[in-house]
Amino acid sequence: MSDTLRSVPAHDAAPADPAGSDRTPLGATDRRRADIGVIGLAVMGSGLARNLASRNGNTVAVYNREHDRTRDFAAAYPDADFVPTFSYEDFAASLTTPRTALVMIRAGAPVDDVISSLTEVFEPGDIIVDGGNSEYADTIRRERALREHGINFVGAGISGGEEGALTGPSIMPGGSDESWVTLGPILRSIAAVAEGEPCVTHVGHDGAGHFVKMVHNGIEYADMQLIAEAYDLIRRGTGKTPAEIADVFSEWNTGELESYLIEITAEVLRQVDAETGEPLVDVILDQAGAKGTGAWTVQTALSLGVPVSGIAEATFARSLSSHPEQRAAAAGLPGPAEDFHADDTEQFIEDVRQALFASKIIAYSQGFDEIRAGAAEYDWNIDLGAISKIWRGGCIIRAQFLNRIADAYADQPDLPVLATAPYFADALTRGQDAWRRVVIAAAQAGIPSPAFSSSLAYYDGIRAERLPAALIQGQRDFFGAHTYKRTDKEGTFHTQWSGDRTEIEAEDTH
Amino acid sequence: MSDTLRSVPAHDAAPADPAGSDRTPLGATDRRRADIGVIGLAVMGSGLARNLASRNGNTVAVYNREHDRTRDFAAAYPDADFVPTFSYEDFAASLTTPRTALVMIRAGAPVDDVISSLTEVFEPGDIIVDGGNSEYADTIRRERALREHGINFVGAGISGGEEGALTGPSIMPGGSDESWVTLGPILRSIAAVAEGEPCVTHVGHDGAGHFVKMVHNGIEYADMQLIAEAYDLIRRGTGKTPAEIADVFSEWNTGELESYLIEITAEVLRQVDAETGEPLVDVILDQAGAKGTGAWTVQTALSLGVPVSGIAEATFARSLSSHPEQRAAAAGLPGPAEDFHADDTEQFIEDVRQALFASKIIAYSQGFDEIRAGAAEYDWNIDLGAISKIWRGGCIIRAQFLNRIADAYADQPDLPVLATAPYFADALTRGQDAWRRVVIAAAQAGIPSPAFSSSLAYYDGIRAERLPAALIQGQRDFFGAHTYKRTDKEGTFHTQWSGDRTEIEAEDTH
Repeated sequence: MSDTLRSVPAHDAAPADPAGSDRTPLGATDRRRADIGVIGLAVMGSGLARNLASRNGNTVAVYNREHDRTRDFAAAYPDADFVPTFSYEDFAASLTTPRTALVMIRAGAPVDDVISSLTEVFEPGDIIVDGGNSEYADTIRRERALREHGINFVGAGISGGEEGALTGPSIMPGGSDESWVTLGPILRSIAAVAEGEPCVTHVGHDGAGHFVKMVHNGIEYADMQLIAEAYDLIRRGTGKTPAEIADVFSEWNTGELESYLIEITAEVLRQVDAETGEPLVDVILDQAGAKGTGAWTVQTALSLGVPVSGIAEATFARSLSSHPEQRAAAAGLPGPAEDFHADDTEQFIEDVRQALFASKIIAYSQGFDEIRAGAAEYDWNIDLGAISKIWRGGCIIRAQFLNRIADAYADQPDLPVLATAPYFADALTRGQDAWRRVVIAAAQAGIPSPAFSSSLAYYDGIRAERLPAALIQGQRDFFGAHTYKRTDKEGTFHTQWSGDRTEIEAEDTH
Repeated sequence: MSDTLRSVPAHDAAPADPAGSDRTPLGATDRRRADIGVIGLAVMGSGLARNLASRNGNTVAVYNREHDRTRDFAAAYPDADFVPTFSYEDFAASLTTPRTALVMIRAGAPVDDVISSLTEVFEPGDIIVDGGNSEYADTIRRERALREHGINFVGAGISGGEEGALTGPSIMPGGSDESWVTLGPILRSIAAVAEGEPCVTHVGHDGAGHFVKMVHNGIEYADMQLIAEAYDLIRRGTGKTPAEIADVFSEWNTGELESYLIEITAEVLRQVDAETGEPLVDVILDQAGAKGTGAWTVQTALSLGVPVSGIAEATFARSLSSHPEQRAAAAGLPGPAEDFHADDTEQFIEDVRQALFASKIIAYSQGFDEIRAGAAEYDWNIDLGAISKIWRGGCIIRAQFLNRIADAYADQPDLPVLATAPYFADALTRGQDAWRRVVIAAAQAGIPSPAFSSSLAYYDGIRAERLPAALIQGQRDFFGAHTYKRTDKEGTFHTQWSGDRTEIEAEDTH
């Protein structure tokens, strides 16, 4: 999230404290009256502080490292009950007990610094919530360290950007059951609401919340890349203008693809650049940035042995795009001799829609597979259906579609592959011909579709009766004596390739 | 590498030391006479010790944690000049100075234990070589720690398996220039030789050697997966038997695909299971194992922002294969309605050959891109041409092809994308039609080809004049105010999406 672009509204009035000193403005009667405190008043922190104060009438202590920002923020919202504080001592003193601090600062070392300062002024039973995009491994470490001080540390993923922070985000808290007793009602009161349910649940212990938020972001990468490929295919395959393609996305947003990302894609494609009169999407430099959560998702999946190929291709597509010197060097490599144009525009667009939906099912299936594997690895008791429900509102990947995921896990909580649940299996069955036609068209046309084609390859791989992995095992046994198993009996075997090529039973060295 | 399957040859004779005690067998005259010492006598360690002793007449001190193995090893090769040692003190005392120890044990904590023990008995100027598959970050850390003791620590990647260790591996040493003065002649004398040149070079400082070995293994994953996909496509597309496909690979091994992996693929496919009379590849369980270096390669590439999609798909294909419960759940998902059979068998096989070569070029190009990026990140001055040369012999990915890579970097050392060098660009230009036909056939037939299709998508992505990454930047600006750049002027911009949708110039928040 940008934390400089949209800050506190400007105001001309002189600050309430003309001396500008950092002395605490708290009188004796002010002390210990704030229900919760927020540390860090950038976009997300200030939005959440306002959400806490306005939607629920809380008294909210606020603290920012740059004290001017704290002063300006409190002054900008005179109707809200903010308690500006200018030291960690004052911050702690302003809170009712057990104290609850929501830390909204940049992930990494700064979080450790703030925790260390809070540890000095907080008491056993108090709660520190890290609402930033921290790595779940850091959260596990911090929770363990703070437990020794008797302080409840909660890593909470919060999605929704500036608007979500202010009006209701999707919240994914980890942490102890004890912390949830205090925190649950507060977080439920500020979360987004989807179909009457607040978009927050106690995900699991220690790092579970940040883990799930990480995967949320990874899925978001895949979803965005799939949409980008769909747009590119339609544009290059039919010659439609961005504004015309915006209409296609708007139309799609009324059906099974209905989602925030489809909705805003139409908005972006419809936007005209005031300066040039061109579609904005043609003026924007085609080098995608990334903040790292996509890469973390894939790195973690690799450690867990979970194939999240759709998220990986989406992450790589961004890095590929952002190396202009390499793209310049490769610009001369030829594409297909013949230009591609879809024979039947309407059919092609419908094919792309079905390919997008099928690929999206695979991306979400892979993401939920990663959460399942993470929960098993770290002993988190994660309700996958509840996760899909809290993503229905507030967050970037919010979509109707998530209700179907909730249904799938309600029917079968231990579903081994989400894509095999009846609703999704049916959609894949109906869509596979169109999906194949689109991947074929992309290969034929020279239009890069890494996420579409990778998702299809995953689909054909996971359903394959027999995979050439057997050959790989043979190769590994040949060059490294890595052994193999057989289809017809138990045990671990090795062929003596450099000897007489007889097979021997071997110790399992995997 | 297996370290239990093939160990020291059995021998019936009683050990030389009937008391079986661990006292040192070194007399006063034996002291300080070994040229080099090897710690760890599993497959790789014993092979290298024998290589050092036999190919070059070195006196080699040997040490193993299980002392019986040390005794048995020395007794098994009475003609070689081994000095068995049973404590780190004796090991150190047996070596001429500066001492050189080659540590060949399992990567991870055991390496730290051995280093700690050696540090107590070694002196400034001595050299410790870690020849295992250590993570390069560990190697950087260890080198720094040992520098304070004045000891030269060298992380050396060694590839070639059991046979390579014994007769000549490919060696990728990092470490200081000082260590290379002593170590260079020793390593050159035991390395594989390709076209008259020893397959070893001083890769770069500290972790450079293990980094390059890691990428070597990642490329190996991609190469193996591509071969497996080629086999699967030919098998399912033409109905040829494994033995017939073995002949295809043997034929391919006479052309531009000539390589060790193609050669052994033919051997594996030709092998008949004695018990069932079936092709062995049909008896081997189709669940591919992995030791982690493929995953590390991809994880590192993600941190460096390098798109190694071919290696990633290969790694994911292995993990997909090894989840039988998921595959069972997905077995009912349908494939294409019609069975696939190539119209023209010979043409299809030739198409697959060209697709394999093109995809292989992309996999190597991505791998070298990762080495280039790693060298930039860690300030290693790596000669990419020299790396390709030392892979021509001894290691798993040895191939004629690597000469072309050496040529490419000789012509243009700062080549931004290997695939754009004239030889490779020409091969891709000639092969792209066949490559597209194969990816299309796979999608049509429902045969999973993640590495083929991902490589083609990379090719079409890197050469694209315009990528839909621009739409992704628009989406990111819409939901997170992440800003974007423009094609027509400098600066960083933001459209006020939730306001009047005018564009403002913004601080760069990336």
